[in-house]
Amino acid sequence: MPNNAITLELKSEIEDLLNSYVQCIDDDDLENWPNFFTDQCLYQIIPRENHEIGLPTAVMWCDSRGMLEDRITALRHANVYQVQWYRHIISNPVITTDDGETFHVQSNYAVFKTCNDGESTVYNVGRYVDEIVRDKGVLKFKKRSAIYDTHRITTLLVIPV
Amino acid sequence: MPNNAITLELKSEIEDLLNSYVQCIDDDDLENWPNFFTDQCLYQIIPRENHEIGLPTAVMWCDSRGMLEDRITALRHANVYQVQWYRHIISNPVITTDDGETFHVQSNYAVFKTCNDGESTVYNVGRYVDEIVRDKGVLKFKKRSAIYDTHRITTLLVIPV
Amino acid sequence: MPNNAITLELKSEIEDLLNSYVQCIDDDDLENWPNFFTDQCLYQIIPRENHEIGLPTAVMWCDSRGMLEDRITALRHANVYQVQWYRHIISNPVITTDDGETFHVQSNYAVFKTCNDGESTVYNVGRYVDEIVRDKGVLKFKKRSAIYDTHRITTLLVIPV
Repeated sequence: MPNNAITLELKSEIEDLLNSYVQCIDDDDLENWPNFFTDQCLYQIIPRENHEIGLPTAVMWCDSRGMLEDRITALRHANVYQVQWYRHIISNPVITTDDGETFHVQSNYAVFKTCNDGESTVYNVGRYVDEIVRDKGVLKFKKRSAIYDTHRITTLLVIPV
Repeated sequence: MPNNAITLELKSEIEDLLNSYVQCIDDDDLENWPNFFTDQCLYQIIPRENHEIGLPTAVMWCDSRGMLEDRITALRHANVYQVQWYRHIISNPVITTDDGETFHVQSNYAVFKTCNDGESTVYNVGRYVDEIVRDKGVLKFKKRSAIYDTHRITTLLVIPV
Repeated sequence: MPNNAITLELKSEIEDLLNSYVQCIDDDDLENWPNFFTDQCLYQIIPRENHEIGLPTAVMWCDSRGMLEDRITALRHANVYQVQWYRHIISNPVITTDDGETFHVQSNYAVFKTCNDGESTVYNVGRYVDEIVRDKGVLKFKKRSAIYDTHRITTLLVIPV
């Protein structure tokens, strides 16, 4: 299906999904994070090296909404990690579709982290590769891969990107 | 009022305001900066910690266009500070409205600073929380809060973000 | 010509060009990079200082598609440089036109570089100043200037921004 299946309205709706997703994480509204995904879904944070040579090992890997919810429960009640704030910057979404129902979106992201010392550092940069579908009329991630370049991760990566 | 009050045209107009605002500062066209605000307005640069617990202290606080203009006059003729260039990157605007007249916009920003040594560093990251209204037909900031994460500010914060 | 010559469709098409350009470089699809330009074109990476005082010296300067293609050939087969990944973040495109045929676009960019040590650093920040025209029905860069603030360039700047 040619790209002109991507109407301005659809493009805007997809951008709203990408924007609200990032705001949800940065505002620490993490209990709401699983709602951006379909029930059967895949979310992973994977190094670019593994992704490019087809190795599956990921830093974070959840293949259902249940696992996403568990991730947040663990983060709130079990994981021990440094107090930190994320600040995402996202850009250049490129949207394509083959069937007008599954939308493939690639966009770049940079996450800045600020800890107690008050300094903001470049924590993780990479790209999102997404499969987005309509679920009961609402656009959601069926698959979201955060493929990162920054393969030296300075502190425990607990909060999703 | 549901979000579908935010038409594509309005969304584009709001994005143009956010984009032009940033270009104005980065191009050092600071005399034009107050024109982005209504006469009665509030502009503040405030640490996230204060904002979250309701403390008012801000690094920069102007509650009228006159004060904005004074800020630029001081910056041009009184303040002593390091030669520096700002480069803003902004992303993920999320737009809502209750009455179709005041538009609430939250977006993320990262400001890179380059000084005489030629190195660009992450200077200030945070989010803008805006109230935007139409003023004689033109969209302007009635309120703009730059709520920053980077609570260690490396040099005198003179130039607005 | 007033800015309302910039329809939503045209704005979206220009944004798609800017987004795909960045994705092409970051995905290392560099053989495709010259296709974003008209045959007679100008691409340059120039320090802000030179640009502002009208000095012509640029770090990269190509005034035809042929030279762009040579640049990629050199990069693949001749230049010796550190293995590195770029990650672009672009933002706030401001679009104007005088005649409805040549579109002047200014936008900000930040390029993060990740080398073997796995750390992502702020490599180059600046602004793009573009002249975009329709070439056989497709929008292309007639002129793209990457005017950078970061005048201390840490490693050989081989890959275009």
